Amino acid sequence: MMSQYSKQKLSVSSKLTQISANRCFDGEQHYYRHESLATNTPMTFSIYLPDEALAGQRCPAILYLSGLTCNADNVTHKAHFQQKCSELGVIFIAPDTSPRSSDDIDVADDERYFVGQGASYYVDAVEAPWSEHFNMQSYIVDEFYDLVRQEFPVNSIGITGHSMGGHGALLLGFKYPSKFVSVSALSPVCAASESDWGQAAYTQYFGDDKSLWQQADAAKVIAKAGQQYASLLVDQGAADNFLSEGQLQTEKLQQACKDAQQPLTLRYQAGHDHSYYFIQTVIEDHIWHHYRQAQLS
Amino acid sequence: MMSQYSKQKLSVSSKLTQISANRCFDGEQHYYRHESLATNTPMTFSIYLPDEALAGQRCPAILYLSGLTCNADNVTHKAHFQQKCSELGVIFIAPDTSPRSSDDIDVADDERYFVGQGASYYVDAVEAPWSEHFNMQSYIVDEFYDLVRQEFPVNSIGITGHSMGGHGALLLGFKYPSKFVSVSALSPVCAASESDWGQAAYTQYFGDDKSLWQQADAAKVIAKAGQQYASLLVDQGAADNFLSEGQLQTEKLQQACKDAQQPLTLRYQAGHDHSYYFIQTVIEDHIWHHYRQAQLS
Repeated sequence: MMSQYSKQKLSVSSKLTQISANRCFDGEQHYYRHESLATNTPMTFSIYLPDEALAGQRCPAILYLSGLTCNADNVTHKAHFQQKCSELGVIFIAPDTSPRSSDDIDVADDERYFVGQGASYYVDAVEAPWSEHFNMQSYIVDEFYDLVRQEFPVNSIGITGHSMGGHGALLLGFKYPSKFVSVSALSPVCAASESDWGQAAYTQYFGDDKSLWQQADAAKVIAKAGQQYASLLVDQGAADNFLSEGQLQTEKLQQACKDAQQPLTLRYQAGHDHSYYFIQTVIEDHIWHHYRQAQLS
Repeated sequence: MMSQYSKQKLSVSSKLTQISANRCFDGEQHYYRHESLATNTPMTFSIYLPDEALAGQRCPAILYLSGLTCNADNVTHKAHFQQKCSELGVIFIAPDTSPRSSDDIDVADDERYFVGQGASYYVDAVEAPWSEHFNMQSYIVDEFYDLVRQEFPVNSIGITGHSMGGHGALLLGFKYPSKFVSVSALSPVCAASESDWGQAAYTQYFGDDKSLWQQADAAKVIAKAGQQYASLLVDQGAADNFLSEGQLQTEKLQQACKDAQQPLTLRYQAGHDHSYYFIQTVIEDHIWHHYRQAQLS
């Protein structure tokens, strides 16, 4: 299982402050901080680099967007993507879910867990006080995307995510198909503009302008975008309480893909809930999905 | 990867209070609480049950003892044993590292992280104030061992652990070889009576009685016990700062196994540190080790 550890050749610029580096399988799990222009805050992310990448060889990358209340730690500690990424030579990148307050910067927040810090929905807010820092769509698809391509040996990027991050992956993947070679999602919020969580957030971030709500609803964006990818993989726990509560509305994604003639592999996993125990169960299949699409691209 | 979820047939007695149950691969991750007579406190543990066990079929089990500062969460969230245990049909059990204070019960503690709550060393303390609750050797090898065999469909038990828990696995495995079919360890404290951490703890738990210190030193116990197992697997990160600081003293385990003619597979893993990133890298090999020994027993 273990190869000889080779001294890393990777060098990153002063834009990035390294927080930690730990050997994990045949690669390293790194954390970094950088100053974001899009959010006007420091932003933290984790990146798993297989030995090929540490040696400077270009590798396919997966960008994982996390769900409500999470930061990069949840997926990095609990999803167990490292083993398969080590085997296949895939880079796995996990940004934060929103800008956050720090000693110097006071970022707006909301006591409800589905609005504010940890709950950006990966959109650019237009309403005060959110518009000052909550520009996560621009952050992900422009600034962070470019940063990752400049600083790490990435040869293609696929996008995935869980729950609110599944919404983010579907939304950004179909809004910016030239940027991503593949899309998948786990337990995604499929129709944010029509779920309680999403409506609470969009009232804050977009106010009354319902055209912005539509443009930030994954199912509506997919229906309009048409087919963009050879395949789309979505896993959903069949015993997920947020599914039965109507927060996820998987059927709207199914209808949108039908309307768009976008091939969709939708798997309802019996007995599984919304937790990282579910995510770790299916993450390997998602890594395979992105790896295969990267090979074909 | 996924089989149809079958309604569990497992039934546990009123001795156990179930805290949670999550589907994970082809099995379930459970947490339980029970009232311990050995520690005179409530004790919490996690147990992964593959579908075979949920259906009542007897399976081999691995008892994992965690390291300093940990409780059952660390290994359950971060070690990623579930996938391999699901594949092989192995039960994985993680007790807590010590008794703990609760609303009703005030358990002794020490502000140093290597003494007191989270730092039992899996021994029975004889000195006040520790002796009232710190009876973790009796808890693990008698009370918890029996509880697990009574309440779950276990057909054999192997023992492993990390750091202080690696010490616990070696110590209890070689003190009670009739109870365990296999032993392994990750980054174990090999000679607790001669490490700074262990000496600080044993001064508290045993006072000046150095015979008790010797009986709680894994290397000394192995040297005295002689060969007890067909094989013994130990993994150690070569870049582990606690190794270079002298807390682990792996060479003393090597010498003890030589003296005892106990076959030892000792692997120094290049570049790896003391973290759960290391543990997840090698845990599959340890599950295989225990599974194979269980098949042979």
